[in-house]
Order: sequence, then C-alpha cells, then structure tokens
Amino acid sequence: MAAAAAARLLRLAPRRLQVPKASPIAALSFPLQRTAPLAAASGRRQRFCAAAHASTPAPAPAAAATGAAGEAVGEFRKRLRVADVKGGEDEGAAWVGKELAVRGWVRTCRAQRTVTFVEVNDGSCLSNMQCVLTPDTEGYDQIDSVTIGASVLVEGVVASSQGSKQKVELKVSKITVIGKSDPTSFPIQKKRASREFLRTVAHLRPRTNTFGAVARVRNALAYATHKFFQDNGFVWVSSPIITASDCEGAGEQFYVTTLLSNSAEGGSLLKDIPATKDGRVDWSQDFFCKPAFLTVSGQLNGETYASALSDIYTFGPTFRAENSNTARHLAEFWMIEPELAFADLNDDMACATAYLQYVVKYILENCKEDMDFFNTWVEKGIIDRLNDVVEKNFIHLSYTDAVELLLGSKKEFEFPVKWGLDLQSEHERYITEVALGGRPVIIRDYPKEIKAFYMRENDDGKTVAAMDLLVPRVGELIGGSQREERLDYLEARLDEQNLNKESYWWYLDLRRYGSVPHAGFGLGFERLVQFATGIDNIRDAIPFPRVPGSAEF
Amino acid sequence: MAAAAAARLLRLAPRRLQVPKASPIAALSFPLQRTAPLAAASGRRQRFCAAAHASTPAPAPAAAATGAAGEAVGEFRKRLRVADVKGGEDEGAAWVGKELAVRGWVRTCRAQRTVTFVEVNDGSCLSNMQCVLTPDTEGYDQIDSVTIGASVLVEGVVASSQGSKQKVELKVSKITVIGKSDPTSFPIQKKRASREFLRTVAHLRPRTNTFGAVARVRNALAYATHKFFQDNGFVWVSSPIITASDCEGAGEQFYVTTLLSNSAEGGSLLKDIPATKDGRVDWSQDFFCKPAFLTVSGQLNGETYASALSDIYTFGPTFRAENSNTARHLAEFWMIEPELAFADLNDDMACATAYLQYVVKYILENCKEDMDFFNTWVEKGIIDRLNDVVEKNFIHLSYTDAVELLLGSKKEFEFPVKWGLDLQSEHERYITEVALGGRPVIIRDYPKEIKAFYMRENDDGKTVAAMDLLVPRVGELIGGSQREERLDYLEARLDEQNLNKESYWWYLDLRRYGSVPHAGFGLGFERLVQFATGIDNIRDAIPFPRVPGSAEF
Repeated sequence: MAAAAAARLLRLAPRRLQVPKASPIAALSFPLQRTAPLAAASGRRQRFCAAAHASTPAPAPAAAATGAAGEAVGEFRKRLRVADVKGGEDEGAAWVGKELAVRGWVRTCRAQRTVTFVEVNDGSCLSNMQCVLTPDTEGYDQIDSVTIGASVLVEGVVASSQGSKQKVELKVSKITVIGKSDPTSFPIQKKRASREFLRTVAHLRPRTNTFGAVARVRNALAYATHKFFQDNGFVWVSSPIITASDCEGAGEQFYVTTLLSNSAEGGSLLKDIPATKDGRVDWSQDFFCKPAFLTVSGQLNGETYASALSDIYTFGPTFRAENSNTARHLAEFWMIEPELAFADLNDDMACATAYLQYVVKYILENCKEDMDFFNTWVEKGIIDRLNDVVEKNFIHLSYTDAVELLLGSKKEFEFPVKWGLDLQSEHERYITEVALGGRPVIIRDYPKEIKAFYMRENDDGKTVAAMDLLVPRVGELIGGSQREERLDYLEARLDEQNLNKESYWWYLDLRRYGSVPHAGFGLGFERLVQFATGIDNIRDAIPFPRVPGSAEF
Repeated sequence: MAAAAAARLLRLAPRRLQVPKASPIAALSFPLQRTAPLAAASGRRQRFCAAAHASTPAPAPAAAATGAAGEAVGEFRKRLRVADVKGGEDEGAAWVGKELAVRGWVRTCRAQRTVTFVEVNDGSCLSNMQCVLTPDTEGYDQIDSVTIGASVLVEGVVASSQGSKQKVELKVSKITVIGKSDPTSFPIQKKRASREFLRTVAHLRPRTNTFGAVARVRNALAYATHKFFQDNGFVWVSSPIITASDCEGAGEQFYVTTLLSNSAEGGSLLKDIPATKDGRVDWSQDFFCKPAFLTVSGQLNGETYASALSDIYTFGPTFRAENSNTARHLAEFWMIEPELAFADLNDDMACATAYLQYVVKYILENCKEDMDFFNTWVEKGIIDRLNDVVEKNFIHLSYTDAVELLLGSKKEFEFPVKWGLDLQSEHERYITEVALGGRPVIIRDYPKEIKAFYMRENDDGKTVAAMDLLVPRVGELIGGSQREERLDYLEARLDEQNLNKESYWWYLDLRRYGSVPHAGFGLGFERLVQFATGIDNIRDAIPFPRVPGSAEF
C-alpha cells in the first residue's frame, strides 16, 4: 500500500518554493489559461506535480467543495522536469540555492558513511538528479524502500555538486517513497541487460538509459518530420489503415475480419465461419462485405489528396505479413509518405534530401545528451556520420551509370552486376562507402521491369523515374518516384503486370480529370530511428515490435 | 496525351520572374540547404513548380548530364502557393505588378465578351486565383480544354481586381493546360453535390470547397495537437496497432490474420484454414501464433511509457468492429491519448481543458478563411461557439451533483435519471446547454459499476476518478480518468469484472515496480474535427471512412 499512502501524501500542499528569477519557469507556464476564477468557484487547483510553482494552499478535496453549480477547472502548467533544471547550457547552475521537488524513479542508491546518494530519473532526459540524503533527512526511515525501480518524491535545495559527473545535485530535506519496487524481482537490474532480454520486458525497458534515449530521439524525429512538412506547406493526410482494394498484392497483407469472432468457448470453430455453397469463405458476411486488409502503403490514397491540395504527407502505420525474422523487418511499422504535385523526380530528390538533412540536424541540435550517449555506447562515431549527412552534398547517379561504375570497379561481388538486375546491398554499399567516399547517394532511373507499375516511364522507354536514397553503413533509407500521370501509359503498365484495371478505377480517375506531374517518396520511420541512433535491431526502434510469432504487450 | 505534353512543357525554363521585396518569399526559402555545387556537378536543379523563384536557365535533361561521378542533388524550396500570395493581411496587394506562375485545378471558366475569367485553386487555401484571359493570351487556343477539373499552369502579372470578391487577380500572359478533364463526365459539377454522393467519389471530394477546408482544418488540429504536447514536454509514443492481448474485450475487435490468405483461385476455401483435431481454428499456425486483433485503445501501452518518461501521448489509429451505422461512428478512427505521471484527476481535467482550448484557438487563428467558410455554409455561429470554448471557464461537477441537478430541474427526460445509471445525451445536453448556459462541462467521479476496471477508486468506495468532458451541441468529446495505481485495488477490480489477471501481467507490473499516481484521457480525433468544423457526419471528417459494409478506396 505504499502507493496509496504516497498518493494521499502528494495531495497535501506542497512546500512553498521559490523560483529563481530569469529561470526557465516563466517560459514554461502555459500561456492560454484563463486565470480569473468563477465567482462560484471555491478555489483553484494547481497541478500537484508542478510543485515548484505552487504558492497557494491546496484546496479542500474536490468532492466536499463542489455543488451543483460546479467549480472552475484548474490551470494546467508544464511539469517542472529534470531536463528543465539540468538541460540548459549551465547544466543547472542557475538553480543553485533554490528549492525544488523532483519526482521520478530510483536508478541507484549508494549508502556511504555519512551520506546516501540516490540517482532519480524522471525520463525527461538521460541525466539523473543526484539526490544527497543524510540520516537527518525527513523520510530517511524509509531508506530501505529507496531501491532500484521505486518511485520517489524528493524535495530539497539545489547545490553545486562536488562530483565530476554533474554540476548540481539536490540536498534533500525530505524524501517520500511513492511506489515500492522489490529489488530482487525487479527485472531490470543495474548490470547491463541484453537487448534480447529487454524485449521480453518491453513495458519496463523505457526505464533504461538506452530505451529512454531511443524514445526521446524517436519523438524528436517524429516532431521534426511534422515541422519540416508543415513549414513547407504540406498537409498531413491520414491514409486508411484498413483497405479493401487489393492494389498492392495480397500475398504480404494481413486480413482484417470479423468472421472468426463468432467464436465458441475454447476457440473459434471452423464450422461457424460463414461459407458459400462451394465451401469458400463467404466474404459477403464479413464486416466490410468483402475481403479487407491492412494497408502496405498509403501512397495511392495520398496521391488523391495531392491531386487536390498539391503537397501532402502521410505519417501512419503500415503492415507486412512477411515471414522475415530479421533485424531489419517488422510486421507493423510507421511510414512517412509525402506526395508533391506539379513535381518531377528532381523535385522529389531535392525534397527527400532536404527532409533528411532537416530531421538529422534537428536531433543533433535538440537531443545532444542522448546523441552523445549513442556516440559513446551504441555506435562510436555516429555523430560524425550524421554530421556528414547534414553537411555533405547528396549525389545522384543514374542506375545505368551505377552499373557502369560497379563494372568498372574490377571488384568481385557476390551477386552479379548486370543492367536489368536489381542492385544488392553489397553494390549499394560499394557505391556510397567506397566509390563516393561516404556520401549519401541517390540512384535513379531504374529499369522498369524491376519497379512498380505506377512509376513514370522515362523517354528511353526502358527506365522509370524511380529513386533510392542510400546512406553509408545503413543502405536504402528512402524510395520514391515520379508517378505515371499519363492515363494511356499507366493502363499499359497495369496490363503488362496483369493487374486488374477495374480495381484501380479511382486511381486512374486522377489521370482522367486534371492529371498533373507528381512525385513522392516513402520512408520507413523505424529505419530512420535506427539510422539516427545506431540501434542494430529494428525491434528496438519501436516501443512494442510486432514480428512473426510475437505481438506481445 | 495532354498531360504528357504539359509535363515536357513544364520542364522548359520558366520565365524569369521578379519577386517583390519584403514579400513572403524570403521566409519561404528552405534554410538548411547547401548551396555550393560540387565541382563535378554540371549545374543545379530548381524545383520547377516554384517557378516564381527561378532565375537560372533550366539544366539539360538529367540522363545526358551525369556521369559515374554523379551530380549534386538540387535545392528544395517551398512551392509558391496561392495561400502565400493571397493569404496575408493585404490579400495579395503587395504582389500587384509582379509576375507570377500559378498551378492548380480549374474551378470555373466564364467567358465574357472580351475577357475570360478562370478560377484556379491549388488546394493551399479556399481562395481561388482569379485569372483573366483575353484572346491574345498565349495558349488561348486551348481555351476549350480549360474546363472544370482540368489542371493548368497560368503565368502572368498580378493586378488589382475590380471584382468585389478579391483584392487581386492574375492578368494572364500564358496559359498551359496540363491535364484535361472531360466536363460532362467529371463527377464534381458546379452545382452543389450532396455529401452522400461525394462519399462515393472520396478520391475527388478534396477538390470541393468543403472537403478542402476540412482537410486543412484537420491538418491544423493535428499539428496543434503535436505542438501542444511537445511544448509541454510530452513524448509521442506509438502504441501498437496489432495486439494479441485481449485486454479490452474481443467482441468489438477486428481479427488480424494470415490464416485466410493461403487462398485458392476464386476465394479462400474453408478446408484450407488450419484447424485443430476438434475442428477449431489452429491459431498456432497464424502469423503471431495466437489470435491477434486491431487495437481499440493505446492507453494501457501508453501507461507503460508514462511510467518511465513521465508525460507521453499517443496519436494513432484505433478500431471498433461495432456494427454501428450512425453519423457518429467509424470502424477506423484516430485517437489522441495523453498519459500524465505524478498526476491526479484534477491535473487530468486541467490538461484536457488546456489542450482543447489550445487547439481551438490555433485553428481560429490559423484557419481564418476556412473557419469563415464553415461559419457561413456549414454551421452558422460556429465561430462564436468555438470562441466560447476558448474564452469561458470550463466547469467541473461531480456525477452525484449532476444527478441532483437533473432531478432538481423538474424537466421530463426520456431516459430515467437515477444515481447509478449512466447519463444519456439528453442529460448531458441539458447540463451544458441549459443548466450551465452553454459552458463546457466536465462531469467526474462516476459510479464505479458503469466505468472501466482501470479507473481509480475514490475514497467513498462507490465512485471512480473518471471524467467526461462535454461541450454544448456536440456532447462528449473527451473521456479520461485517474488510473488505479494500487496493486491490490486493481487486482480486486479485475476479479470483480471477471477479467483474467494473467493476461494483464505487464500492466500489473507497473503497479509492482515504482507505481505512481497517473491519469490520462482519450479523444477521438474525428469527433474533434466534427466539433471544430460543424460537419454533421463523421464520415466526412476523415479522408477515407471505414464503416460496416464499406472500405472503399
């Protein structure tokens, strides 16, 4: 019942605390809030976890104070986080001498002769707040419960730290254990756990340094993605997740159905599945009255909105029912798919390059501490590698020239190099890492036989305006193309690939009514996270990975 | 082949155009791009749709210019949009006298005696660019193809307009038809089409005023959502879409499976579905080796990350296999689910209120033209209604007080009012619209019997710390609660509701290891879009609605 006791405790009026002048606090207050309480209101509520701001006594419990006239909702303020204290250039020096309350989880507790050091992390940054306790500290009688994984509230005064690891620490006047954690059974012990093991405790792994950092950088990449496209006038469009059009080849698609759910106790009986007279699944009785799938790409839908709003992007989950148990495949992953109207392959390459440089620059500037961590512990040199991406010119090269370059290299490759065959990873790596000296490269204008039906045929009749963006060490990060906007060419391509024109009626309509040259690209978001963090296995780049045989949590 | 010809045309060097000083252009240039070309590069590419910026001659076709050394990728610039010209306070007056190129789709073409007016829309804003042609205009011989739905490039000089509808228009020196549109078969004619009909052409409906505006406001609401939470230190977390935990009651969940896909020509044969000896579906042979579903909520997963990073939010699709053919239900919809650690119900209410006020204020400030359109054509008075939300204090009221208020009203309701019964829409509307005079209201502390197992039990033992946020005319927009952080209480609740504790092992772990008081809420994004646009039917608030019997496009 430690948590229950603490919850009550937390509702007590927090200590009256001073905030340093010119501190980040002013900027943290949420600007929109009304401040005048209603006449009928008995008082205003403070968000209790922003204890450092509190200056009014806590109101009486809500149930007692309200009547049928109601009470005004309290003001929302940004929580004061460890990142707000230690994340600045001065690493917290401006806070020295100020009172502060920190809430978070115990990472370590080291008892020395006269003092005890407790490292508390609140997830806002990699840094812990080092908290210094003495036997005189209020709440010290609970010290046996201050164990790894426990949640605590620590209140005290910020002081300069004598340790080399941090500029400031908290001289604790009071510690409160909010939620205990049995140190023997807590799955994440101080000694380094393997990534494989941590996947089995995916609900707790964000409490480790690595996965906390991955979560923050992943968040920053997502937000930078929105910022880039919004700043450039793109409209975010939600492409559908469930789709009944079998446009992309159903082989790798998941079925979405309610036919299996009229299930008996102990599991769905086959005989309960609606069937036609000839023993086939009766799709007319399914939820959507026909087979439905999880989307593998929002592109075709995205093109419809680009053909009205000009520039759009999607950012949502996509799926592959591929039985690939590799470090690079997920059954569920997030994709970013911009689509640009009145644009050709050159525009597409320029946009992909600018996008990638923007998001990489964003995390280098905004996630410095986490990036330093990856640079030290996950991939040495990753910051240099990413700086190269931001600073170096991207090169583009036709597929035909790439094949010539490979043939001219005299290097022996495992897979054959021949015009018309797809490039393999070893070829791509040779081009980016050796031939072009560590520069990101876009290869474009691939043979049409190895590319999708919607890619625009070039004037040579043999190639299409496709592009793959390759980066050193990682390989393909982005794939895109100019789309075939000419109705007759597109219909011919559908025929060539034995695709059913009727099911593409709406996609073809875009070419019937005000067709425009347009282009776009797709980017697997988890690949971007891998690229930006150095994390080896894609299962560690998403909170809850879905792979063959596993959809846990 | 109009599109093909135009595509080539578009690649010609655009006319050299001047940009007015102190125009928005300077701010539009993308700041990150490298500008120094490589020594090996033969030239730099301009994004051709930003014709107004072009000042260098177009380079030779890419294929001819590159070699194995590659060529530098060109600079990406924001496209000059109609919104950039007409969207400012002066409605384009600063552009008078300047040359400009506009690309978009023809909305109307009106031939008068000496001049022809063509309204061109590029989707960046509601406003068209009125283009004025005379028989002397270059390309006037194509005027018969300048029909509704066709895509065009118009180049000319901005002039003051004598019309009352706009400040500026384009005196066209040259018009190019990019993609034709057969005016008789084009599904969206000028006369007002019904929303029902437009759903059957969901691929073209964003080209209407209403759906263009909905798409832009939806985009603004999404971006404002990210901005609000990011500015307040929340981390965006992707909760999983596919889930094998049956935590939420599988009755309303879609199955995700590959068992149906080993299908014969003509449809899946029942006999091909893997079965156990007793005639049940053999889930061990399914992709995830057990039944898997589409998520109905990311909350439980979100709580795991809040228990490590403190404040998080999800924003992703969720699903209900509910057979509800109403104007308020979708089978696939987007949800926003923030989760706040070290927070109670008061914090939760404060956050929900601040969030809602922020996003509403954001669209009122950033989507003025679209909001005026909704105010005039979709819901008269919507701007006042939304201003009320931004400006008025939100009231909170306990369920118990709400019941007393209803009982004291002497009003006859269709559904009974009695402590322990859920509130119906008529009750909620009476409270917000009549009793509290058009104010948003939060009702909290509901009887535990009518709420979910994870909501925190209040000290009275009868109610839980749940809240519903109600807004006038729309009803419930947000539902949330403080979560039960006490292990023994939570286990008792699971038992009471006959839920299987073993399948919640990881959720219970959060209460075993460093449990903290925490709270969160959920918001259906399409409901928010309805609320913010006045659109009646939720199927019109998402690009491609999924409902029983339909997953088209």
